[in-house]
Amino acid sequence: MGEKERDMTVNPYQVEGKVDYERLVKEFGLEKINEDILKKIKKAIGKEELHFMLRRGIFFAGRDLNWLLNEYEKGNKFFLYTGCGPSGPVHVGHLMVWYFTKWLQDKFDVELYFQFTDDEKFLYKDLSYEEIQKWTEENMLDVIAVGFNPKKTHFIIDTKHAGLMYPQAIKVAKKLTFSTIKASFGFNESNNVGSIFYTAMQAVPAFLPSVLKKKKMPCLIPHAIDQDPHFRITRDILPKLGYYKPASIQCSFLPPLTGSEGKMSSSSEASKGILSTDSPNEVKNKINRYAFSGGRDTIEEHKKLGGNTEIDVSFQYLKYFFEEDDKKLKEIEKDYKSGKLSTGELKKYAIEKISKFLEEHQKRRKNAKKLIPQYILKT
Amino acid sequence: MGEKERDMTVNPYQVEGKVDYERLVKEFGLEKINEDILKKIKKAIGKEELHFMLRRGIFFAGRDLNWLLNEYEKGNKFFLYTGCGPSGPVHVGHLMVWYFTKWLQDKFDVELYFQFTDDEKFLYKDLSYEEIQKWTEENMLDVIAVGFNPKKTHFIIDTKHAGLMYPQAIKVAKKLTFSTIKASFGFNESNNVGSIFYTAMQAVPAFLPSVLKKKKMPCLIPHAIDQDPHFRITRDILPKLGYYKPASIQCSFLPPLTGSEGKMSSSSEASKGILSTDSPNEVKNKINRYAFSGGRDTIEEHKKLGGNTEIDVSFQYLKYFFEEDDKKLKEIEKDYKSGKLSTGELKKYAIEKISKFLEEHQKRRKNAKKLIPQYILKT
Repeated sequence: MGEKERDMTVNPYQVEGKVDYERLVKEFGLEKINEDILKKIKKAIGKEELHFMLRRGIFFAGRDLNWLLNEYEKGNKFFLYTGCGPSGPVHVGHLMVWYFTKWLQDKFDVELYFQFTDDEKFLYKDLSYEEIQKWTEENMLDVIAVGFNPKKTHFIIDTKHAGLMYPQAIKVAKKLTFSTIKASFGFNESNNVGSIFYTAMQAVPAFLPSVLKKKKMPCLIPHAIDQDPHFRITRDILPKLGYYKPASIQCSFLPPLTGSEGKMSSSSEASKGILSTDSPNEVKNKINRYAFSGGRDTIEEHKKLGGNTEIDVSFQYLKYFFEEDDKKLKEIEKDYKSGKLSTGELKKYAIEKISKFLEEHQKRRKNAKKLIPQYILKT
Repeated sequence: MGEKERDMTVNPYQVEGKVDYERLVKEFGLEKINEDILKKIKKAIGKEELHFMLRRGIFFAGRDLNWLLNEYEKGNKFFLYTGCGPSGPVHVGHLMVWYFTKWLQDKFDVELYFQFTDDEKFLYKDLSYEEIQKWTEENMLDVIAVGFNPKKTHFIIDTKHAGLMYPQAIKVAKKLTFSTIKASFGFNESNNVGSIFYTAMQAVPAFLPSVLKKKKMPCLIPHAIDQDPHFRITRDILPKLGYYKPASIQCSFLPPLTGSEGKMSSSSEASKGILSTDSPNEVKNKINRYAFSGGRDTIEEHKKLGGNTEIDVSFQYLKYFFEEDDKKLKEIEKDYKSGKLSTGELKKYAIEKISKFLEEHQKRRKNAKKLIPQYILKT
């Protein structure tokens, strides 16, 4: 199940090489989001516009979405579950998934359980318990800044909610062998026993609301595709415990600034992305210096032959996250491909859009600290 | 580290074959309790009589006892830590360790942390979560009936105290690989991931009081020798977290009624022992029917050649637990060896002693339920 072939590895603990999404869909056994699913979503949210990340196929695959939407139509509401591994600053790759999740929460009017996997990060990273706690609090500010409905959003912090989580996690763990873990995550015998146990903790929010509300509830997990191995395990086990398999809706990776391969990471210097706290000046410097360009070597050549939007990071950032307006995006695409729009101009536009977005985010982030208690799941 | 050679296996999850204690001491790397240690204990408890389980070498080995007693002498008090795996009724093999622990608590006037490893038993046994919870409550009654000082005794129930336990357990788990677990307990890849993680939970009470009291405190663990692999791991890791290695004082196994091999177990029908709740009639039946006899085949032969106290279960029960009086025990030994005392008479005496002991225990057990809240560790 851990995808490692020739040039590509995609699992929660390693994303390397050029990601072939078609191959992942096949190998993971995902369902691609088709027109039928999109229509069903549209119907469910009352004929409102679909989110641009759906229109553009950024969220492009999933599991059991058809079933989930049928249940919703019948009045059997799902809850959302997503999360954050707090080991460093939040980057725009994280924000992308969370802003989409907020859209889902608003349109479907559902509860969201948001897990901070501080135990995971402590067990996997060379960081102290205290450092992880610091990042947990920092990351919470960003999640709050996304603007989730505080009345319907519940933060689960694995170590703080261990009293709730661990007794449920052992029910999952009892049905999960080391061989499965080994195959799913590429582990071996030198892995620490906490990391081996951990996926059982990540399974819990997919059924914890059903436990708390004493009623079997459908669950939808929006996440980037690398997390799928965790939830494949969750899906195998939950029916054995009397719960629904969680459905999922999965996105491809916002590329790192350097373009080509892997995913953005807040802890790897090489693939460092734009952070939620970056100032307009930092955004400008990062895009100008690092954002891989699909433009030609000279202005003359560019004007004649045009640029390649497929590999241009500035364009991809606009497409994935920062340009909501389809018409505007089409126009940029056309002009860049034709050579009318230069790399400099494209970068300038991307810098403006990203900075403006982050400015709004940061305004809300500044006021987030005092809101934390409202969001923490009551036990 | 998991001892499996020819005919003997001794680890927390398997005790099989005839147990060779000398070999275990060597292979586990234990220190035998010598005259010096006994003298030090005697001095520490103010020249009072040593417990008969020490006098008779039932508790016969340990780790760092010399250090622990030196610290005690310097005024650096230890705390006690022992426990119970709640998967069935309590038998006299459990009671033996706990009554000795009570003696330690009383004589040294120290705190006791008593762990109920309900997570462990759920993960290892074919019992439901609810069944384990039922046994946990049942077993608590027996622990309370032992008469531990409620002001100085703190029950830790792994799932109920998971909020305290899990965040500490992951600190242990981060320093513990699957290879170590595999070697210590004879596990393989088909073990469930909860069972692989579990020993990290068993390590926690050895330093939790130091966490709670924000002060590094020595710990003494009284336990039967099969638990040593858990605490060898604990001892390896705790100094890396800034705590003392726990000391231990270890006993040999009260033999099963059938005599010869293994240890008493409340969950294996074959080695079923005398339970804490057995009536005088049940004790009588069990001893008469099952207790392996060291007597001769005929009364005539017995009178002539005498019996073998070494293999006689009734005699061993008196020696291990039910006959506190050394003089009386010597007398029985002498008479049985000479043939003056018959197997029937020995059994009758053992039945009386055991029944009387259990009667007192059961009286206290009857009133234990309402005392539970006093004993539960406050969080």
